Amino acid sequence: MRVYLDAYRSRRIFTEAAHRACGLIRSVGAPSGLYQEAMFAVDALDEARGTVLKALKADGDVVFTSGGTEANNLAIVGAARANPAGRHIVVSAIDQPSVLAPAKDMTKAGFDVDFVGVTEDGTIDLEDLAGTIRRDTTLVSVQSVNQEVGAIQPLSAVVEVVQGSSNALLHTDATYAIGRLPVDLSRIDVDLLSFSSHRLSGPIGAGALYVRPDLNVSPHVMGDTSYHRFRGGTENVPAVAGMGVAVGVMCERKDAIWRHTDMLRRRLLDGVGSIEATRVNSPAEVTPEPTPLHSVGRPLGMPDLANVTFNFAEGEAITLYLDMEEIAVSTGSACASWNLQANYVLMAMGRTHEEAHGSIRFSFDENNTTEEIDRVVEKISEIVERLRSMSAFKPKK
Amino acid sequence: MRVYLDAYRSRRIFTEAAHRACGLIRSVGAPSGLYQEAMFAVDALDEARGTVLKALKADGDVVFTSGGTEANNLAIVGAARANPAGRHIVVSAIDQPSVLAPAKDMTKAGFDVDFVGVTEDGTIDLEDLAGTIRRDTTLVSVQSVNQEVGAIQPLSAVVEVVQGSSNALLHTDATYAIGRLPVDLSRIDVDLLSFSSHRLSGPIGAGALYVRPDLNVSPHVMGDTSYHRFRGGTENVPAVAGMGVAVGVMCERKDAIWRHTDMLRRRLLDGVGSIEATRVNSPAEVTPEPTPLHSVGRPLGMPDLANVTFNFAEGEAITLYLDMEEIAVSTGSACASWNLQANYVLMAMGRTHEEAHGSIRFSFDENNTTEEIDRVVEKISEIVERLRSMSAFKPKK
Repeated sequence: MRVYLDAYRSRRIFTEAAHRACGLIRSVGAPSGLYQEAMFAVDALDEARGTVLKALKADGDVVFTSGGTEANNLAIVGAARANPAGRHIVVSAIDQPSVLAPAKDMTKAGFDVDFVGVTEDGTIDLEDLAGTIRRDTTLVSVQSVNQEVGAIQPLSAVVEVVQGSSNALLHTDATYAIGRLPVDLSRIDVDLLSFSSHRLSGPIGAGALYVRPDLNVSPHVMGDTSYHRFRGGTENVPAVAGMGVAVGVMCERKDAIWRHTDMLRRRLLDGVGSIEATRVNSPAEVTPEPTPLHSVGRPLGMPDLANVTFNFAEGEAITLYLDMEEIAVSTGSACASWNLQANYVLMAMGRTHEEAHGSIRFSFDENNTTEEIDRVVEKISEIVERLRSMSAFKPKK
Repeated sequence: MRVYLDAYRSRRIFTEAAHRACGLIRSVGAPSGLYQEAMFAVDALDEARGTVLKALKADGDVVFTSGGTEANNLAIVGAARANPAGRHIVVSAIDQPSVLAPAKDMTKAGFDVDFVGVTEDGTIDLEDLAGTIRRDTTLVSVQSVNQEVGAIQPLSAVVEVVQGSSNALLHTDATYAIGRLPVDLSRIDVDLLSFSSHRLSGPIGAGALYVRPDLNVSPHVMGDTSYHRFRGGTENVPAVAGMGVAVGVMCERKDAIWRHTDMLRRRLLDGVGSIEATRVNSPAEVTPEPTPLHSVGRPLGMPDLANVTFNFAEGEAITLYLDMEEIAVSTGSACASWNLQANYVLMAMGRTHEEAHGSIRFSFDENNTTEEIDRVVEKISEIVERLRSMSAFKPKK
């Protein structure tokens, strides 16, 4: 039996979401038609939109995209281009590549782009943010939950800093927040919010961008915009409908999933804590019940993620050996990362190259069991010991 | 029983393609992981890539996208940005909005963009093309088959004109060519070729861009490019695998589909030909066997599409009445079009506003029957007569 501990790369799909998507795969309705099949497609999209707005406690619009990457691209490029009053963009240095890459790209269109650092806890440095925001800042993007270490970002404080000194729009990539913890847009003033389907147990191939009422966004995927003025192309109706189901299921089971995964995380950390020369990169504190996003004021982590550095061992080697033991995890090692550098999140948190290279990200869902965790602890202890015995580096006794 | 005659908007999915996609929907492998599930995903993508290259008789690369729209965007924006030696782009005026919109958008990045007109047959005006190409033209985009009237474009002549006076890259949107007729890239020198899954009976949510060896393209969807350097984001593995199956099935059944749909088209045109004041907008000649794309030298149409204008009747009204009779077709009328203008393809072909507004696009697949066609002819005759009797306009007796 395989042990899958990489829910932050792709979360195992809910049966309900798979059924919804596959039930629609034979439907021929592209929403742009003028006939019943098309109306059926429009209804399916409207239903998903309603579920998303309800989950966010928000009015406004939801643009369906091909995934979180496209949604983040649309937020950065589309919002900056449609609202170019100022030409300054600020993003958190530990956001996803799908935020960082388009932000960098906007420099070619004449925008100034600044990246704001983080503390060693993996949360945005609010002083750095305050010093970076300018009166002409157009757009600020700070994720809700970090993808590598699970740090929940202090978004209410971010809103306060941004609104205190600019008219900038605020975008948050809420990929690991929506469905996992309460995201209440009546309590937190963001203009744009994106997420990905397959990271909340929906089908791959869908994502969404929430857009505050009356806000304009330039299409990034350009073409026939007859269904939605912010996006060209035919919507992936089966995947979007499945994503809507997944959002609903995640929200409904939020508390139970939180408690179960938190129990697994604590068991794992207890186990690997007995291996010498390890360091936990995720925030130490996780609340016993789901943390409301608007309430975060101190470093808090997620229950379903643990990022751990095993010093004097290489993350890629650990990952490959674990795979041979039928265990799937993720590493912040160079070859596994998008820019072939040591994990940029851990580096931004002040970790050394060696610490970043030796890091493993364990992430859980409700299907993981205590038996699986015990096997992972046993195997990783053996593997780390073996790698260290082959290595020139040794922990100091 | 519904009669679905809108295969050019979305072609009914092959059972084989649906099974392939749904069989993979529970797989958790994003290709970026370092474990078996990810290798499995990479294998599925490689298999689809192999099928596509075999269908095109080509070496080179295939970038998988979320659909034809994204593939066309990547071709235009990505190729122009990565190869900016000249700053001049030329596109056919009747290409898809997903080609036209990004081409127009490139003017904001400092490119000159020209649109080349077509003849009344709906094929590109080669003299206009020759007069438009400049020595500094970077990129030329001319589709393979037109989406509204089914005119097959004289691509070999286009290649000759382009290569005779520039070093421009040539892109073709082959959405309605691949799988429908022989597309042999060893006989026709294009650099970039795009297509859409759901328009060749694959699942919605996938598309592809073929890229000639050694050619560079800047990512348009930007993010984690660890799987493919030309595109960020997680690939939609189930949909891409299903698309690969669909390409294979279409290629295999090409001849039979060609003959069956051609028989349906001729039956439909015979039937509606007895309605007065109609005009067929599609090319009159269709070859009895699939037309090889590289061989097209005179106006030729497709077997599975017929675009007909019913003068003194409004296309949107015809479409809505047909829907009430359980028949789904497409119209070039204003409200159904992406830019709220009368169909731009028919207008570019020199048709009047009235002719464009009264046009209906019938498109067929192998599941349509002669009985269905007979019912469509009967119903459309009644509907057109009724609409004309209510209209201020009357055909001249």
